[in-house]
Amino acid sequence: MRVAFLGLGLIGGSIARALRGDRAAELAVVAAWTPRGEGPRAALAAGVIDEVADDPAAAVAGADLIVIAAPPLATLQLIDLLGSLPDGVLGRDATVTDVASTKGVIVRRADAAGLAFVGGHPMAGRETSGFGGASADLFVDRPWVVIPGRAARRFDIERVERLARACGARTVALDAATHDAATAAISHAPLVVAAALVEAMAGAPGEPPPETWKVARTLAASGWRDMTRLARGDAAMGAGILATNGPAVAARLRDVRDRLDAWIAALEAVGGPDARALQADLEVDRDRAPTPDRDAPRPDPS
Amino acid sequence: MRVAFLGLGLIGGSIARALRGDRAAELAVVAAWTPRGEGPRAALAAGVIDEVADDPAAAVAGADLIVIAAPPLATLQLIDLLGSLPDGVLGRDATVTDVASTKGVIVRRADAAGLAFVGGHPMAGRETSGFGGASADLFVDRPWVVIPGRAARRFDIERVERLARACGARTVALDAATHDAATAAISHAPLVVAAALVEAMAGAPGEPPPETWKVARTLAASGWRDMTRLARGDAAMGAGILATNGPAVAARLRDVRDRLDAWIAALEAVGGPDARALQADLEVDRDRAPTPDRDAPRPDPS
Repeated sequence: MRVAFLGLGLIGGSIARALRGDRAAELAVVAAWTPRGEGPRAALAAGVIDEVADDPAAAVAGADLIVIAAPPLATLQLIDLLGSLPDGVLGRDATVTDVASTKGVIVRRADAAGLAFVGGHPMAGRETSGFGGASADLFVDRPWVVIPGRAARRFDIERVERLARACGARTVALDAATHDAATAAISHAPLVVAAALVEAMAGAPGEPPPETWKVARTLAASGWRDMTRLARGDAAMGAGILATNGPAVAARLRDVRDRLDAWIAALEAVGGPDARALQADLEVDRDRAPTPDRDAPRPDPS
Repeated sequence: MRVAFLGLGLIGGSIARALRGDRAAELAVVAAWTPRGEGPRAALAAGVIDEVADDPAAAVAGADLIVIAAPPLATLQLIDLLGSLPDGVLGRDATVTDVASTKGVIVRRADAAGLAFVGGHPMAGRETSGFGGASADLFVDRPWVVIPGRAARRFDIERVERLARACGARTVALDAATHDAATAAISHAPLVVAAALVEAMAGAPGEPPPETWKVARTLAASGWRDMTRLARGDAAMGAGILATNGPAVAARLRDVRDRLDAWIAALEAVGGPDARALQADLEVDRDRAPTPDRDAPRPDPS
């Protein structure tokens, strides 16, 4: 099975490295294209791919499985491009998949473009980007959500499942709306909360930092670091995610705001806060905030 | 200089270990008391202290410097207890300090108790607790805020500064209100934000988890882990911090809520979110969210 990549940064590069390391999977990475070509050239030098393609059409020619490994907005553009290629460039039996963090808008666009599309979302990442941060074990034991489009055939789905398993991931079948609601909860709304926290303390865009920030920033420790790490990620990626999952994220942010209102009321209670009640609530939260099954082994790069 | 501890968990234990390891500092840890005695017994067995005290009075007898190393509410109780000891138990020249995360309420209470008190706040921690997690290098290169009470003499302040330096920390002189506003921004409000995030996604106390949580929790990765780590900390400690810094924390939570409202409006804009504007805002946030100078070397225990 011949695999081509459109996009070869952290995620695409990690998939390509996993495929190259797994001969049993019989998935051959043939070519990769990115707008600037840096990732593919590095991957060629590292022996991870066979060919640096000059354009998307050259990359997908003859491929059985095309992996769009790009941020959400670029993924939409590449779907449109694949849908408008002259007959014969993209094989009739070719399968197209992606790895973007939102799925509803993307799967609908692929359906509109007439592609045999199976949306994918491997649930792992780092705050680094680019092929240089890619590693073959990024997806080991992680969920990989698989969401077939309207024109997907059984063998298209099986190919994407094979891709996920070759990376060591567990496939999870979901519909796009369920996926987008779930990722809004555990990933996309938390990104906005991290950004809002920075803005509240260090100043909103277009406004100067508040006077208190000058001292506060000198005292910041690991709590601040962790609560703002998502806000130090790739801004274009984050904007693309939020732009393609706006309603679901906004709904969860309303829930966060409601809970903040409850906390503000508790902290401003007449006679002062009730420490026992605060403790009881924090104990419930602690018990409801389990860590993900597997993430501790991965070193935090930030 | 003879140092006694009331409380000997992660923070007190780390200070005691640092003192024992630093002969040049000439600070001798003589005794420690905690309600259950577990930390002092472990410290005695490890050769970190000379004596396990049966009660607070026995611990402080003959000490030059008393370190109250307890959560905020227990710190208030110990201040009251020290203030009510019979004449002569606490030496006239004895200095009392603490390590709690809030300072205004505590320094005022020590002033009311008539203690020669210098409030302290070493800005480091872990999500572990207890003497077992203590390490001599916890405070190396970290800020240690020093806030003298009304009855503090110059030598009281110098003793606490010596204590901080013996732990490798940098002393920072602040008034209590400035400290409490700054820590509300970088530590206490973020704790509530983490709790509110858990409650919004996994269910508020007293309510069942939302239906969406069942799927969402299975997809959680490092972003969710980091954004909720503070909510997995010591609930009694967190409640004590919030109960003694309520107004400052509530003020900053209102700022967070205002920023969330702005994000909700942007995500629900007529015609869909403006990806370029979202990206521009996220770029500002990224540049305004620096990591603390020194925290990367410390392994994350959670």
